[in-house]
Amino acid sequence: MIPLLDGEQLLQDLETLAQIGAAPGGGLHRIAFSPADRAGRDWVEEQMRAVGMQVETDAAGNTIGRYPGGELGLAPIALGSHTDTVPNGGRFDGALGVLAALACVRTLHEAGVQLRHPVEVINFTAEEATMSSGTLGSRAMAGSLTAEAVAQAAYDGRPVADHLRAAGLDPTAVLDQARRPVGSLAAYLELHVEQSGLLEAAHIPIGIVEGIVGIRRYNVLFQGYANHAGTTPMTERKDALVMAAPFILTVRDVAVERGIVGTIGTLWLEPGAPNVIPGRVELGLEIRGLDETVLADAEAELARQAKQAGATFEPVSTTSPTLSDPRLMAALAAACDELGLAYRRMPSGAGHDAMRMASITPQAMLFVPSRGGVSHSPDEFTEAEHCIAGARVLLAALLKLDADLDQA
Amino acid sequence: MIPLLDGEQLLQDLETLAQIGAAPGGGLHRIAFSPADRAGRDWVEEQMRAVGMQVETDAAGNTIGRYPGGELGLAPIALGSHTDTVPNGGRFDGALGVLAALACVRTLHEAGVQLRHPVEVINFTAEEATMSSGTLGSRAMAGSLTAEAVAQAAYDGRPVADHLRAAGLDPTAVLDQARRPVGSLAAYLELHVEQSGLLEAAHIPIGIVEGIVGIRRYNVLFQGYANHAGTTPMTERKDALVMAAPFILTVRDVAVERGIVGTIGTLWLEPGAPNVIPGRVELGLEIRGLDETVLADAEAELARQAKQAGATFEPVSTTSPTLSDPRLMAALAAACDELGLAYRRMPSGAGHDAMRMASITPQAMLFVPSRGGVSHSPDEFTEAEHCIAGARVLLAALLKLDADLDQA
Repeated sequence: MIPLLDGEQLLQDLETLAQIGAAPGGGLHRIAFSPADRAGRDWVEEQMRAVGMQVETDAAGNTIGRYPGGELGLAPIALGSHTDTVPNGGRFDGALGVLAALACVRTLHEAGVQLRHPVEVINFTAEEATMSSGTLGSRAMAGSLTAEAVAQAAYDGRPVADHLRAAGLDPTAVLDQARRPVGSLAAYLELHVEQSGLLEAAHIPIGIVEGIVGIRRYNVLFQGYANHAGTTPMTERKDALVMAAPFILTVRDVAVERGIVGTIGTLWLEPGAPNVIPGRVELGLEIRGLDETVLADAEAELARQAKQAGATFEPVSTTSPTLSDPRLMAALAAACDELGLAYRRMPSGAGHDAMRMASITPQAMLFVPSRGGVSHSPDEFTEAEHCIAGARVLLAALLKLDADLDQA
Repeated sequence: MIPLLDGEQLLQDLETLAQIGAAPGGGLHRIAFSPADRAGRDWVEEQMRAVGMQVETDAAGNTIGRYPGGELGLAPIALGSHTDTVPNGGRFDGALGVLAALACVRTLHEAGVQLRHPVEVINFTAEEATMSSGTLGSRAMAGSLTAEAVAQAAYDGRPVADHLRAAGLDPTAVLDQARRPVGSLAAYLELHVEQSGLLEAAHIPIGIVEGIVGIRRYNVLFQGYANHAGTTPMTERKDALVMAAPFILTVRDVAVERGIVGTIGTLWLEPGAPNVIPGRVELGLEIRGLDETVLADAEAELARQAKQAGATFEPVSTTSPTLSDPRLMAALAAACDELGLAYRRMPSGAGHDAMRMASITPQAMLFVPSRGGVSHSPDEFTEAEHCIAGARVLLAALLKLDADLDQA
């Protein structure tokens, strides 16, 4: 019998890690590859060793702690997340997932228990979008990091490659030497704060992530005719902003009707003078959802309506949804049931390391409530009881998967 | 009997003046106080002298040609406009009004006729908004030029005062020494191209301007809540752009219903990232119309609807409409009838020197068609027959006013 995971120790670890890179206003500055990030990673590595793990750092700087398993030939079950933050970030995003994983292994270690599978705790490198679009370490591990991404500008305008070099990493080696083959892990589980307010509002302590949404981005251009705002009668106008206004509402309606999200986050208007009728309006549109079919249908409808409104509709980028593994979701659900915790199945609207890991291993995530849905902010907050409940679900699911996976 | 105004000479004058400041692409660069503007004014001054006028330049740089009248003690009837242009402007805006006025006096001079009233031709300084908001010379003459306006930045970022000094003018003297008392002119008439396509579309050669519209500007601020575009469900959003979209259509509807114009010419969206829900949208709104009551009603309705949509609605500036003098409009109408030219009464959506002159003298304007309503552009074009017709109406109206005004 495995004893209950020590919640107090987890809270204390969260507190200790939150001191590393702490800023006067309550925020955290552990930007990837910064001295504070390095210090945070080093501290985590010490804790890994203290609970009986062997630790290695791969070519991408990912810290991998391994707790040995008892059955020969089984691939490890991995738990993980990241300890880097956005500038002025919070203490839960990423950190909770790593420290909860550590707490799981500590529980095993202190009970003197070895599972069938080895257990890995992975602290990924540069998950936040400070380094081009983020998830640098998990992309390297999954073999999907490209030379283009490494050449891109980081948050400070310098190429990501410069940051890698400054951290003692080889920007070429990071592309292939951290790669792990498909099937080299038996499973990957990640605990994370929700970054939305749904669980909190519904008073549900656990979210089981069904998948990470796909993102489709478009550029929608309304070409009107700029003219004098005083001398051009209303009937003679081709006002690009008036053309675009109904489409803004169409995006909302199309998203609501299909149960996805749709956002116009940017709008450029030209020429942009108080006395000139807008001649050109350019919208940056994105839709997100778990189901490719629904996304394709929404896209078709939006393209049709944009065209009807006289606009051009150009795809900019497409990221496919990443669905969670059904067996892993079932293990998480069974763990919740066992612990008497309510849960809700839900999509993740944001990207995570788990999304990258999906190409080499079955994966699933669980969420705990985040107050007001606030993240990437000093105000980010998750109740102690929810942090502990999340870690306990993670451990219970780990035990179930260890028992169920790789049975002859 | 006064002979018919010489149309060919007017066209030739337009052509000659269009060579001064001509740019390779067909546009004109006679920005106020530039060497080309100076050369244009000097050439006009020569033409004034050649048709029997005495010329003086006032403290604001306005060129005033005076053709003597026969009856002692009568105030002059003034005709005028401006010869400065916007950068890369056209050859008709302003220039036609000055050269048509010159052609009227030339007709009198060549016929050896003196009217009862002296006739003035005024070539105003810096009508275009290159110098703060423009109409610098007519404001100085009407006594409404302020020290603030002279301290403001010109199109090139330098204070207007610097441009005045470089032109040999005293920025302090310009404020009061060019001022003419109320009643010092018997009337002011201005011929201008329409800057809209209404006359052309209706095949009507003359527009009689009933007044220059009032302009009311507002700042309308929608405060939503910026949040993650992936993790925030549609039902939990307060998207400032979605809040603002119906109001964009409301502005159009309110204007159409009231027969005025309404324009949102600027829109600022924050934070403006593809993956963030807009938290703040700020609109720059203006309405224009001839009737203060209608403008006030439109303002009240827009304020009500903005408030209902959750926005704040702040007035930024108000310019009252300037109505044309009924006797002067009647003289223009009678002149059209006499010449067998159709006309339409219409508002002017743009400001002109006549608007400023209204505070010291009865004034009215007439418009001639402008192809496609295009102005402030190398493509600005008015048919020769319309230029000539406009000048002939101006002369006929001048003769009528000379006969009718100041009768004992």
